[in-house]
Amino acid sequence: ATADVTIYGKVHTSIDFVDPDSGDSIYDVTSRASRLGFKGSEDLGDGLKLIWKMETTYNTAEGGFGSGRNTYIGLAGGWGTFLYGKHDTPMKMSTGKLDIFGDEMGDYNATAGLVDIRANDAIAYVSPNFSGLTLVGAVVPDADYDGDGDFGGAYSVAAMYSNGGLFLAGAYEQLDDLVGGADANHWRIGAGFDMGAFHIGAVYADQGDLTSSDNYVINGSWKFGNNKLKAEWAQVDPDNGSKSDAWAIGLDHNFSKRTKMYVQYADSEHGLQSTNPSGEQSGVSFGMVHKF
Amino acid sequence: ATADVTIYGKVHTSIDFVDPDSGDSIYDVTSRASRLGFKGSEDLGDGLKLIWKMETTYNTAEGGFGSGRNTYIGLAGGWGTFLYGKHDTPMKMSTGKLDIFGDEMGDYNATAGLVDIRANDAIAYVSPNFSGLTLVGAVVPDADYDGDGDFGGAYSVAAMYSNGGLFLAGAYEQLDDLVGGADANHWRIGAGFDMGAFHIGAVYADQGDLTSSDNYVINGSWKFGNNKLKAEWAQVDPDNGSKSDAWAIGLDHNFSKRTKMYVQYADSEHGLQSTNPSGEQSGVSFGMVHKF
Amino acid sequence: ATADVTIYGKVHTSIDFVDPDSGDSIYDVTSRASRLGFKGSEDLGDGLKLIWKMETTYNTAEGGFGSGRNTYIGLAGGWGTFLYGKHDTPMKMSTGKLDIFGDEMGDYNATAGLVDIRANDAIAYVSPNFSGLTLVGAVVPDADYDGDGDFGGAYSVAAMYSNGGLFLAGAYEQLDDLVGGADANHWRIGAGFDMGAFHIGAVYADQGDLTSSDNYVINGSWKFGNNKLKAEWAQVDPDNGSKSDAWAIGLDHNFSKRTKMYVQYADSEHGLQSTNPSGEQSGVSFGMVHKF
Repeated sequence: ATADVTIYGKVHTSIDFVDPDSGDSIYDVTSRASRLGFKGSEDLGDGLKLIWKMETTYNTAEGGFGSGRNTYIGLAGGWGTFLYGKHDTPMKMSTGKLDIFGDEMGDYNATAGLVDIRANDAIAYVSPNFSGLTLVGAVVPDADYDGDGDFGGAYSVAAMYSNGGLFLAGAYEQLDDLVGGADANHWRIGAGFDMGAFHIGAVYADQGDLTSSDNYVINGSWKFGNNKLKAEWAQVDPDNGSKSDAWAIGLDHNFSKRTKMYVQYADSEHGLQSTNPSGEQSGVSFGMVHKF
Repeated sequence: ATADVTIYGKVHTSIDFVDPDSGDSIYDVTSRASRLGFKGSEDLGDGLKLIWKMETTYNTAEGGFGSGRNTYIGLAGGWGTFLYGKHDTPMKMSTGKLDIFGDEMGDYNATAGLVDIRANDAIAYVSPNFSGLTLVGAVVPDADYDGDGDFGGAYSVAAMYSNGGLFLAGAYEQLDDLVGGADANHWRIGAGFDMGAFHIGAVYADQGDLTSSDNYVINGSWKFGNNKLKAEWAQVDPDNGSKSDAWAIGLDHNFSKRTKMYVQYADSEHGLQSTNPSGEQSGVSFGMVHKF
Repeated sequence: ATADVTIYGKVHTSIDFVDPDSGDSIYDVTSRASRLGFKGSEDLGDGLKLIWKMETTYNTAEGGFGSGRNTYIGLAGGWGTFLYGKHDTPMKMSTGKLDIFGDEMGDYNATAGLVDIRANDAIAYVSPNFSGLTLVGAVVPDADYDGDGDFGGAYSVAAMYSNGGLFLAGAYEQLDDLVGGADANHWRIGAGFDMGAFHIGAVYADQGDLTSSDNYVINGSWKFGNNKLKAEWAQVDPDNGSKSDAWAIGLDHNFSKRTKMYVQYADSEHGLQSTNPSGEQSGVSFGMVHKF
């Protein structure tokens, strides 16, 4: 019981002021991927370890648990990690650390339109770290035996390489039987470089049949004292349609390793949030983030 | 992780026997605002403290998590507390301690028809205690940027004063763009007095445009040994319509500081529960309450 | 707070390969009654103990909390245990330990069509153990005062006897006002016997007006080293209709007291899962189970 369980999570709530191209300015309180998780492990001997996790979205602006996040059972050893359940696909994992505005108003899923999937019913393998290289693969069944309504299958593979200040990532993903019956192939590459207080990174994605677009993001940051200045430029270039740009600039203040406060400005020709208002808009977001 | 998180909550379940004015007597098991919460804080130095909470209703009669309760992130210091998320409005906070049947069959929200709101997306400030005086203010945005469906804005202010056995409270609240588009203004005053084993309290509310009513409640209690005898009279006086009364009497037995058992009788001309049956009714409620 | 709360649960996820009599073979990841629970107790003195539990289904294949499991508050003493809330009925409790494929593909609820109910709003009493004999009774109100939508009443009684390797159980249950307005009476008997590494058990149920069937299951197991071989045969014999059989065979490997891995094969003329696909089918299930 309790001794075997670690409780962890994150509270990330922002107050957003948004000025749409048409219509009045508005403001709102937003929960940004806040979560509560339970996890544990057991040493099974012979270098084998049982791992499990139950992680759930928690709406810190309106209260209440939401949909599940990474949730699985698996085995880990010198040969790598095998797990199954709900998990980020290898493509989502591949460039995640290059999303320096992750879950914030300037999140690259919003600014660059990158499609990231946390797949139900996933079966995944993560390799050990080979001198900086990690390989990940996952497959998702396309049947719905347990009646959860998830029919769409997928497979996704990724490679990540880390060495000194350099980070490189590449991923390929195929999604079958999505809503509407369409299949989709997309691939993505990313690179990052750290040099002292400076970081710079970029991601390019070809989101084949899914959104039929090329997607670009370039971002960088500079640490000074307990603060970090961040900037990002992104572009969505649809196969049919015209390019649209977005950019963001932000200042983080770290109270501690676990707690930060930030303010950022973002401007996007294709919107910053999937909901009201849509279309061209700019916004200022003030947020607090606490990990526990 | 775990060391930083406090788990707390309350199990409050009753067995209710209800005799409606028309129709058969019934009985049922009822979860009364049972809850499970997670909270924590971090000392940020310079007298500043990060605070957070995720508190969720748990149905202890039928199982399962329900809607969120007070859930927020904020900062606390000598200057008071700033927090945002989901929270009781200052008006709800103002006279809460005068609801001596709180969450029970004789709850003043049922007997006196007092409207208490736990607001989504609230931004609130609580002052330090100035020689017994505490001021609270909150504002709720009227936009829905994050797509949660909460459009109605509000602001609410309250003052509470505690000194010796005396307690005084006053609050004003304005609700905009409620369902149906109506606005509402209401204000509320309350007073309580403790003298030895005796307590007496009263609340008066003018629920302007919301229910268009004046609402009254007077209650008192007497402690003897580990027991408490409680009684309450309440009245709803609508602007258009006739007055209706309700009263309740109850006996609490405290097994410990954390656990009590009670039995109470309530009678109301305007019903005790928003669901079946409605209308004039009386009831007996046997309950157990355990805080953890 | 925390010190008073025990967190516990189970992760049980399987990968199922199913071959229906008609249609293509499929595979899927399935959460099998995975759960997260919080519980506690308080010594009230005089041999009296307050007990409480909040246990919730957690979908370890798709993430997120589901419906509640056993959730209650109650008192326990030398005279037995009184509790109320959501709980397995005495009939479900009576033969539960004879379901050696419990929650797995070969679960007797699937293979033998046994109807087990976890009742909302239940009020239950569990006797002390009298030289191996335990009596359990529960009643469920048939009214819906708290508006949860549970109108159906029930009562259920059971007796269980354990002595040496012998286990005997009998139960009777009456369900009123089910969906469609029908009442149902059913009764059930079960027996089990342990001898060294061998176990054998059987359950017979007469599910009177509910499914109008006689239901049979016989199963057995053999432990060797850290492994257990299990086999089961079951039959559903409807009053109107033809008999159908099911059987299952499985191998469990226990990594530890808390963790096992299994593979099993099941074949049923009446389906193994209430959802897609239905009808005659066979399946192979690979699963991992971890208790914490």
